[in-house]
Amino acid sequence: MRIAVDAMGGDFAPDAIVEGVLMAAAEVPEQVTIVLVGKQATIQALLNAHGAESVANIELVNADDVIGMSEHPTKALSQKPNSSIGVGFKLLKEKNVNAFCSAGNTGAMHVGALFSIKSIEGVLRPCIAGFVPQITGGYAVMLDIGANADCKPEMMAQFGEIGSIYAQYTFGIERPRVVLMNIGSEEQKGSLVAQAAHQLLKDNRRINFVGNIEGGDFFAGKADVIVTDGFTGNTMFKLGESFYRMAEQRGIHDDFLDKTNYESVGGSPILGVNGNVIIAHGISSPLAIKNMISLAVRQVESNAYTKIAQALN
Amino acid sequence: MRIAVDAMGGDFAPDAIVEGVLMAAAEVPEQVTIVLVGKQATIQALLNAHGAESVANIELVNADDVIGMSEHPTKALSQKPNSSIGVGFKLLKEKNVNAFCSAGNTGAMHVGALFSIKSIEGVLRPCIAGFVPQITGGYAVMLDIGANADCKPEMMAQFGEIGSIYAQYTFGIERPRVVLMNIGSEEQKGSLVAQAAHQLLKDNRRINFVGNIEGGDFFAGKADVIVTDGFTGNTMFKLGESFYRMAEQRGIHDDFLDKTNYESVGGSPILGVNGNVIIAHGISSPLAIKNMISLAVRQVESNAYTKIAQALN
Repeated sequence: MRIAVDAMGGDFAPDAIVEGVLMAAAEVPEQVTIVLVGKQATIQALLNAHGAESVANIELVNADDVIGMSEHPTKALSQKPNSSIGVGFKLLKEKNVNAFCSAGNTGAMHVGALFSIKSIEGVLRPCIAGFVPQITGGYAVMLDIGANADCKPEMMAQFGEIGSIYAQYTFGIERPRVVLMNIGSEEQKGSLVAQAAHQLLKDNRRINFVGNIEGGDFFAGKADVIVTDGFTGNTMFKLGESFYRMAEQRGIHDDFLDKTNYESVGGSPILGVNGNVIIAHGISSPLAIKNMISLAVRQVESNAYTKIAQALN
Repeated sequence: MRIAVDAMGGDFAPDAIVEGVLMAAAEVPEQVTIVLVGKQATIQALLNAHGAESVANIELVNADDVIGMSEHPTKALSQKPNSSIGVGFKLLKEKNVNAFCSAGNTGAMHVGALFSIKSIEGVLRPCIAGFVPQITGGYAVMLDIGANADCKPEMMAQFGEIGSIYAQYTFGIERPRVVLMNIGSEEQKGSLVAQAAHQLLKDNRRINFVGNIEGGDFFAGKADVIVTDGFTGNTMFKLGESFYRMAEQRGIHDDFLDKTNYESVGGSPILGVNGNVIIAHGISSPLAIKNMISLAVRQVESNAYTKIAQALN
């Protein structure tokens, strides 16, 4: 198994990325090779500085350009085919690697996935999934957390199905409890879109839809899959993550709150595309990068994206 | 000043309400009378049980009926004019009291306000404001937190103006910083509604609009007024409140997290109507009720609703 990692993406790249990759390389299963994509000389110098001139399960692939964090995604991708993101998607498309991960420009990662490996047939809109720690243990998969600010009910109903398959195969949950994030528990509650999405989710016999949850249930252990539009999902997910930062600022240490730290999973998959693409926070630390790679390994092993393709076709 | 309180509304009514009113009566300024609305015999018996047969600044007004927490608002109000909510609004409309507060059926409170004291002329849609503690101190006013699940940009722009006036007069903030909750800091980010609302807020010279904030900035001290649609606002507000409950569950005690407890303010005003109406959590404790009454006193003193009316006309 080969996992490509964008060495140049993220606020602390390439240093934090190379350090995280070295941490991961010491831990991943034997059959995993990590492919570092970026400016080869820079990366090699960093590896040398860590006393890791040559690591058996790390491979380097050169990419001369870098897409900046605030560049326009489509423009940047077409103008910089030799950027680390451009080269990473080329490797993924050619099946030279099984997954591509980056803490770089999120928009470019999203557009890159759509242009290279493309959406799964039947998928209305790919989305980004986030992991929400549950106080009862484990994580709920929340989707969409930001790819689609405006959602139609049909899109949200499909997020429920995609999330259910992902939770089943990647997390081994037998009949994932799918819920809709809403502003009341009754089915007639909520925005027009949420009301319509509720009906579609309820009517879908292929998922185990258990109804609405409210904002106060975010961490409550009532769900394995949380369906939401990308606007609500993004604002809630970021608020949820801020819990850890706030606790840290206040000198509070707690096992559960530690799991609300973005580093604990380290990445968010783009779901609904023909391959494994994982994006990470711009601020990603080495630990976050290491955990993102673990997630990638798990996802490749689960083969979730082909299960999604099978279910929708 | 006369503050009416619905003795029968809330999961723990009338006990918790009467207890909270007794706490408030011992603390409010001299000129304040609290008017308890509900089944007089029941309330009197509870007061007696507290050894408070007669309290100088507590008055009783009888109301034979009660609107249940899950009754249909419009139907219940028309069928039960002698409910505590019905009588409370009658007192408010007749200017017998300066404010009406209830932890009862939120929908009935909202509809009751619209039917009795009515929307301020020029207000597109009244909304509910919530108080979000800021890590730098004080509270931000967030609106709407649930009255309008579907919002037009014009409504949200007006929430910005209403919230700004409220923050200025009720909290004494000179030039309140108004922000839009969004999924990115750049003005072209977000849903179509958020993008359009951003432009309208930016163009309004009567407010101090300082741009977008993201979910992670909810508690960050970047805003005095947070504008949002009622769907996003409701889910985020409830998630924010859950921080306290979770911390409590984990045995964490912290001054700031304690402020995320709904009890610390105790109520949410309905803004954009011709009077002071405050709703509280169904689960309201005596402490929450006491703090809701303090908020009501502050709001009556500030005369914010007439300032809103003047600004919009």
